[in-house]
Amino acid sequence: MAEAPKPSPATIAAVTLALQQRFGNRCVTSEAVRQQHAHTTTWLATEPPDMVVFVETAEEVQQVVQVCAEHRVPVIPFGAGSSLEGHLNAPRGGVSVDLSGMKRILAVHPEDLDCVVEPGVTRKELNDYLKSYGLFFPIDPGADASLGGMVATRASGTNAVRYGTMKDNVIALEAVMPNGEVVTTARRAKKTSAGYDLTRLFVGSEGTLGVVTKITLKLHGLPEAISAGVCPFPSVKAAADATIMTIQTGLPVARIELLDAVQVKAVNAYSKLSMPETPVLLVEFHGTEQGVAEQAERFGEIAADLGGGPFEWATKPEDRTRLWQARHDAYWSVMALRPGVKPFATDICVPISHLADCIEETQADIAACGLIAPIVGHVGDGNFHTSVLVDTSSEAEMTVVKGFLTRLVERAHRMEGTCTGEHGVGQGKMKYLEPELGAPALDAMRLIKRALDPDNIMNPGKIVTLQP
Amino acid sequence: MAEAPKPSPATIAAVTLALQQRFGNRCVTSEAVRQQHAHTTTWLATEPPDMVVFVETAEEVQQVVQVCAEHRVPVIPFGAGSSLEGHLNAPRGGVSVDLSGMKRILAVHPEDLDCVVEPGVTRKELNDYLKSYGLFFPIDPGADASLGGMVATRASGTNAVRYGTMKDNVIALEAVMPNGEVVTTARRAKKTSAGYDLTRLFVGSEGTLGVVTKITLKLHGLPEAISAGVCPFPSVKAAADATIMTIQTGLPVARIELLDAVQVKAVNAYSKLSMPETPVLLVEFHGTEQGVAEQAERFGEIAADLGGGPFEWATKPEDRTRLWQARHDAYWSVMALRPGVKPFATDICVPISHLADCIEETQADIAACGLIAPIVGHVGDGNFHTSVLVDTSSEAEMTVVKGFLTRLVERAHRMEGTCTGEHGVGQGKMKYLEPELGAPALDAMRLIKRALDPDNIMNPGKIVTLQP
Repeated sequence: MAEAPKPSPATIAAVTLALQQRFGNRCVTSEAVRQQHAHTTTWLATEPPDMVVFVETAEEVQQVVQVCAEHRVPVIPFGAGSSLEGHLNAPRGGVSVDLSGMKRILAVHPEDLDCVVEPGVTRKELNDYLKSYGLFFPIDPGADASLGGMVATRASGTNAVRYGTMKDNVIALEAVMPNGEVVTTARRAKKTSAGYDLTRLFVGSEGTLGVVTKITLKLHGLPEAISAGVCPFPSVKAAADATIMTIQTGLPVARIELLDAVQVKAVNAYSKLSMPETPVLLVEFHGTEQGVAEQAERFGEIAADLGGGPFEWATKPEDRTRLWQARHDAYWSVMALRPGVKPFATDICVPISHLADCIEETQADIAACGLIAPIVGHVGDGNFHTSVLVDTSSEAEMTVVKGFLTRLVERAHRMEGTCTGEHGVGQGKMKYLEPELGAPALDAMRLIKRALDPDNIMNPGKIVTLQP
Repeated sequence: MAEAPKPSPATIAAVTLALQQRFGNRCVTSEAVRQQHAHTTTWLATEPPDMVVFVETAEEVQQVVQVCAEHRVPVIPFGAGSSLEGHLNAPRGGVSVDLSGMKRILAVHPEDLDCVVEPGVTRKELNDYLKSYGLFFPIDPGADASLGGMVATRASGTNAVRYGTMKDNVIALEAVMPNGEVVTTARRAKKTSAGYDLTRLFVGSEGTLGVVTKITLKLHGLPEAISAGVCPFPSVKAAADATIMTIQTGLPVARIELLDAVQVKAVNAYSKLSMPETPVLLVEFHGTEQGVAEQAERFGEIAADLGGGPFEWATKPEDRTRLWQARHDAYWSVMALRPGVKPFATDICVPISHLADCIEETQADIAACGLIAPIVGHVGDGNFHTSVLVDTSSEAEMTVVKGFLTRLVERAHRMEGTCTGEHGVGQGKMKYLEPELGAPALDAMRLIKRALDPDNIMNPGKIVTLQP
C-alpha cells in the first residue's frame, strides 16, 4: 500500500507480453518512444515508462488498466505531452497509455451548447470542428493541449477571466477506474445536485484516480465581434489596478494579459517591435459590434485614469493580430534570450489585490538572483507565469533556481495564494501542497486516493504520496 | 461499518451528558425543538434527532463532532431548515448541530470580489450587508437559505443561468471532518490547480462528509441597471425555443423563468391578475442602462419570432416588481389552490433541447393522475420544479404521487437528465442515483464516503448507503 518499489523485471515482462499479444505493434518498448513519452518542459529529469500503448477506444483503455491492475503496474495517461510539472514521468516505470489516437468528436449539441469528445482531441482540433456550428470552446492554455490533459490538470489560460477554467466547463466525464470499471460521473444536464461531484474530483486529478475516456464540454457561441488592444503602464501596480477596476466595474473582459518590462524588451528584440519597455496590458472583448467598441473605450478611460496609455485597439482581425503580436511571440522571444537553453515555466496565483506586490517582489528576487525570467500574467485571475532560462545541466544554476522557485511559492502562500493556478502539482510541486493546505487536507486527499486506487497504480508519485 | 443500528439509549445518555456539560442549555432535548429540526417541506416523515446543539464557533462544532465520533453517534448539520428532500432527518437519531448562530461575516474583499462568511449567514443577510459595498452574491434558491445549507445542497435557483450555481461560486471552505480535524480546502486565490478539488467535493455533499464552518464566496458588482419583463407564449415548446434562442445568441440573460398555464391560472386567482392563461416567460437582464434596454428589445424580437408576445418590460424597480408579481407570488398561489394542504416541490433537470418534451409529458402525466401540480422552471438551465398538492396523510393519494415522482425521474433519465438539478438527493432521491449514474459511480461515492467517514456518523442515510 505504501510507496511501492518498481515492479520486478519479471512482472514487466509479463505485462509486456500480455499487452503485445493484445495490441501488437501498438505496444511499443523502444527507448526513443519511451523517452519521448516522459519528456516534457520541466527542470525535472525524465523518467521513462517501460512501454507505451497506443489505444484507440475506451475498451482498449480498460484492457490496459485491467492488465496493469492484475500485475500492480503503474498506468500513466498521456495526451499531447504539453504538461509542465513532470506529470508524465514514470518514477516506478509502468505503462504510458497514449490517448492521442482517441480523437473522435462524438456529438455536438448546438441547442444545448455542449459536445462530447474523446480525450485525444486537442483544443485547436475541437475549435476547427466547431467553427461551422458558430460555436467555440474557450479554454486556451497556450499549448495545443489534448482535452483529456486539460481535464487532468484543471487547465485554464487566457480566456479564464471570462469563461472560467476546466472546472467550470466540464459537464460530465467517463473514466476507467483503477479497478477497471468504467465510471460515468454525470448526465448531460447543465447542472445537477445528484450526489458527490465526481466530475470535479476528476478535473485536476492528474491521472491519479483513473483514465478519462470521454468528456462532455460546455460550448459558447462565437462572438459576433471582438475588439483587442494593447496599453502600456508606468508600473506593474498601475496595470494591476487597471485590471482590478476593469473587473470591479463589470466590464466583461475576455482576456487581460500582462507582460512585464523584461518580457516587452524580449519581444521588441525578437519581433522587431518598438513598444515602450514598461509593463503592458493586452485586452480582448467579445460581444456585439457596438458592445465591444464601448467596452474597449471604457477600458481606455480606466487605463488613462491610472496613468496608462496610449491605448491602441482595433476590431479587424489583422489589426488585432498585430496589436497582440507581443503576446503571441512571448514564448519564442524568451527562447531567443539565451540560445541553447530551453525556458521552463512555473505559475502561481494570488488574490488580485496582492498581485502587484507579488509580481514586484518576484521581479526583485529574479534580479537579485541574476536570473533571466520574464513574467507574463493572466492578471484578471491573479495568476502569473515566469519563464526561467536555466542551464539544467549546471548544478550551480539549478541551486539558484530551486531557491527562487521555493521563495516564489512561499510568497504566494504569504499572500493567500496557491502554488499553482493552472499547471498542476505533478512531481514538481508536491512538496508545496501541505504548506499550502495543511495536513488535514493532505490526509483527506490521501484517503480518497487510497480508497479509489488502493494499489496506487494510477500515475503514482504525483500530487500526493500514500503516506505522509 | 454497514448501516449501523441506532445508538443505544445508554450511548445517547452519555453523549447528552457530555454535551450538556459542555454547552449547558444550548444542548436541547425538548420534543418541540427536536421535531422542528427534522421537519422540512417534504412528503417524507419527520425523524427527529436525539438532541440539538446550538453552536457558535468552529471550535464548538469540532467539540460536538469529537464527542459524537467517540461514541459513534450521528451528526446532522442544520442551517435554516429549508431543504426539501429530508436532508435533516435523523433516521438513526443523533445530534443536530444548529449552525444558525454562526452568523459572522468575517471579511469582504471588494478588490478581489470575494467574502468569507460563517455557515449560518443567510443569503439575504449577506446581500443586505454587501449593499454598501456595491456588491452582491447572486445565488438565489428562493428560500432565505443559510449559505452553509446552500453549499451542502449545491443550490442554484433563478440567477444560475448567468452566474452559475454554488459549485461555481465557492472559492474555499473550512470544514470539521468526521475525525474532528479541521480541513481547509483551498486558499483565497480565484483559481488553483493544487491537488484534488476538495472544495467541490464538499459542495453538494449534504453534510455527509463533514460540517462546513467557513465559506469563501465569489461576489459580483451590483448591476448598474436591470430590465425585467414578462412574455406569454402559445405553448411550452415556443417558450422553450425562445429560451434556447436567447442563450444561443449570447444574450446574457440573468434570469429566465417559465410558469406553465396551470401556474399562471393559480397566480391570476391568488393575486387578482389577468394574465392570459398560457405559458409565460419572465426575464431579467443585468448591465448598463443602454445594455439592458438593448437586451430586452432583442429578447422581444426573439419572442415575437416564435409566436410569443406581447412582451412587456421595464427598468424602474416598482414596474419590474409588478411585472414579476406572478413569479414572486407563485409559491403562495399554489398553497391557495388546495387550502390546508402544503405543496411540496420536486425538481429535475434535462438538456434544454429536451425541456419542452419533458414538461409537456409531465403535464400530461399530472392530468392523467388527477393531481394539482403547477410547474415553474429555471428554463435557461433546463431545470424545472413542480409543486405537488397532496394530502400526505392519505395513503391513496401518496401512492399516486409516488408513481408520478418515479415516472418524472425516469422521464428525466430517458432524456439524458438528472433526478435533481438543485434540491439534492437527501433521503427522497437516493433510489434514483444508481439508475442515473450506474453502479461504478455509486461504488466510487461509497468508497469516498467510507474513506472519509468510516463510522458513518456524518448525516447517515443520505445520498448513499455504505453497502450497495
